[in-house]
Amino acid sequence: MSILIAGGAGFVGVNLVRVLASMKQVLLVYDNESRGNRELLPNSSNIHFRKVDLNDIATLRSLVKRDQQNYGDITEIWHLAANSDIPAGIADITVDLNNTFLSTVNLLRLAEEFKIVKFLFASSSAIYGDLKGAELREEIGPLLPISNYGAMKLASEALLSAAFEKFLKRLCIFRFPNVIGIPATHGVIFDFVNRLKSNPSELHVLGDGSQQKAYMHVDDLVEAMLFIRDEDTNPLSLFNIGPSDQGVTVRYIAEETARIFGSRPSIHFGEGNKGWIGDVPKFNYSTEKLKLLGWTPRLSSTEAVKKSVKQIVSQIAGERP
Amino acid sequence: MSILIAGGAGFVGVNLVRVLASMKQVLLVYDNESRGNRELLPNSSNIHFRKVDLNDIATLRSLVKRDQQNYGDITEIWHLAANSDIPAGIADITVDLNNTFLSTVNLLRLAEEFKIVKFLFASSSAIYGDLKGAELREEIGPLLPISNYGAMKLASEALLSAAFEKFLKRLCIFRFPNVIGIPATHGVIFDFVNRLKSNPSELHVLGDGSQQKAYMHVDDLVEAMLFIRDEDTNPLSLFNIGPSDQGVTVRYIAEETARIFGSRPSIHFGEGNKGWIGDVPKFNYSTEKLKLLGWTPRLSSTEAVKKSVKQIVSQIAGERP
Repeated sequence: MSILIAGGAGFVGVNLVRVLASMKQVLLVYDNESRGNRELLPNSSNIHFRKVDLNDIATLRSLVKRDQQNYGDITEIWHLAANSDIPAGIADITVDLNNTFLSTVNLLRLAEEFKIVKFLFASSSAIYGDLKGAELREEIGPLLPISNYGAMKLASEALLSAAFEKFLKRLCIFRFPNVIGIPATHGVIFDFVNRLKSNPSELHVLGDGSQQKAYMHVDDLVEAMLFIRDEDTNPLSLFNIGPSDQGVTVRYIAEETARIFGSRPSIHFGEGNKGWIGDVPKFNYSTEKLKLLGWTPRLSSTEAVKKSVKQIVSQIAGERP
Repeated sequence: MSILIAGGAGFVGVNLVRVLASMKQVLLVYDNESRGNRELLPNSSNIHFRKVDLNDIATLRSLVKRDQQNYGDITEIWHLAANSDIPAGIADITVDLNNTFLSTVNLLRLAEEFKIVKFLFASSSAIYGDLKGAELREEIGPLLPISNYGAMKLASEALLSAAFEKFLKRLCIFRFPNVIGIPATHGVIFDFVNRLKSNPSELHVLGDGSQQKAYMHVDDLVEAMLFIRDEDTNPLSLFNIGPSDQGVTVRYIAEETARIFGSRPSIHFGEGNKGWIGDVPKFNYSTEKLKLLGWTPRLSSTEAVKKSVKQIVSQIAGERP
């Protein structure tokens, strides 16, 4: 028996793969290496990497057929593949359409054709849009995302829900907060460290720094997903995942990154409380439902930022973690 | 100046076109005639029909360019095009993907490229899924549609919302109930009358007849959409549209259709309270928000059914309304 992990060579993917591999699972990692990289995967004879474009259904079909022959039936599909460059997806609708949504369509086609009835999906808090400080519980609406990324995550949730009605027996929808840690491939801390590396005396920040968001360390995220998969007795699990606090500001992240990086740059802020179109300035993200299920994160947003900055500074300095 | 109506030769489309044409608007009707038919459009030199597949962006671009040259700038786009065969869409994901969702993607591409900033979208109560009798207000969640049709309507809403953040200045999302009237091309009454025509002594009904839904006459629907467009002062309007009552059962519709058709068939019910996978057995559809805006429908579900049955019986008997 095996588990298929789409987008498994990306940031969250390799962390999930590491944990599942430690449980002796046979893992099929399908990834186009757009941001991810097979070099980031742990060394294990149980991990089988396939470079493949999730928009190419014919190749996917033949890979799945062959992999099932070699490694046994696929019992679950994890879908972690997505465009992770939000502004690029806003500039061109095709980016999130193909990478964030049509990837879901094709994985669902595979699931139905190959009778794989367990599906786990990395959704996002971006599906909520900008609800002006309202508490973002799973039961809130209307859902009006303000980026194509958020829109295509919501579209994916919707299609998975219809598939659950038709043939899926188990569906987990995880709504991610901002996730940080290593191996970093993108994101605010990664950007700040790279900018400080090329110019340690100045740091330019998009927006006025007042944007406040919940940050979670990837180790906590992976633990939460597996907890929900294994502990929730409902066949359809839909959970916000995030820290228990209301997050930290971009200003805090900039200052903390500079401090840990060890330089004393002058930090320049931009205007407005949005880093870019599609950026949500303030988040009031509820994780009560997950708490009620019995799981709480180890790290707060502040602690996750501190830990991740240290890890990313080391990563970019070229030290393998 | 002109108005583009995608799906304008379909059931709701021709009713909207009739009303807008009576207001001397110049109308561009883009339709693939899959269910619709240009013969259903009123005769008017202000109505310009184009047979076009909304998935063909190249043809759409050249049509819009030419039509704007001939008839002036397009000031608003109405998107009424969708697959209307829910079971077909469940059997094959491609049906709703192409007709209900990728049609939205292409119309948004046109809107952005040609700087058309007013967009009106026919969404559906199907986006709510089966919330087990909970009152379906616009603010309810989670949204877990149980058909690909509902999923692709929700996906369209999400993408429109992101486009509103980016470039649309006015966006109306109308969540339709079951809409009935003429010219009927599909739907429960249309089916019943056709079955009675071929066999007046028996009527077979999908499900046990206990499914209860809100039905609205298309005349009321068109009036509600124009009321929202013209009276809501918010740039983004999202409204449930429906009757004030909780609807009628399929059993009532079957009996009423038989009575008005004038035959006395034995009516045979199936099993279960769903007509098909993806059918929502009971609806508690709230239209409070629309009432607060100041609009109420003329007809109840019962009255809408009676009127529509009479109209559809005449239509199928070959009498032009």
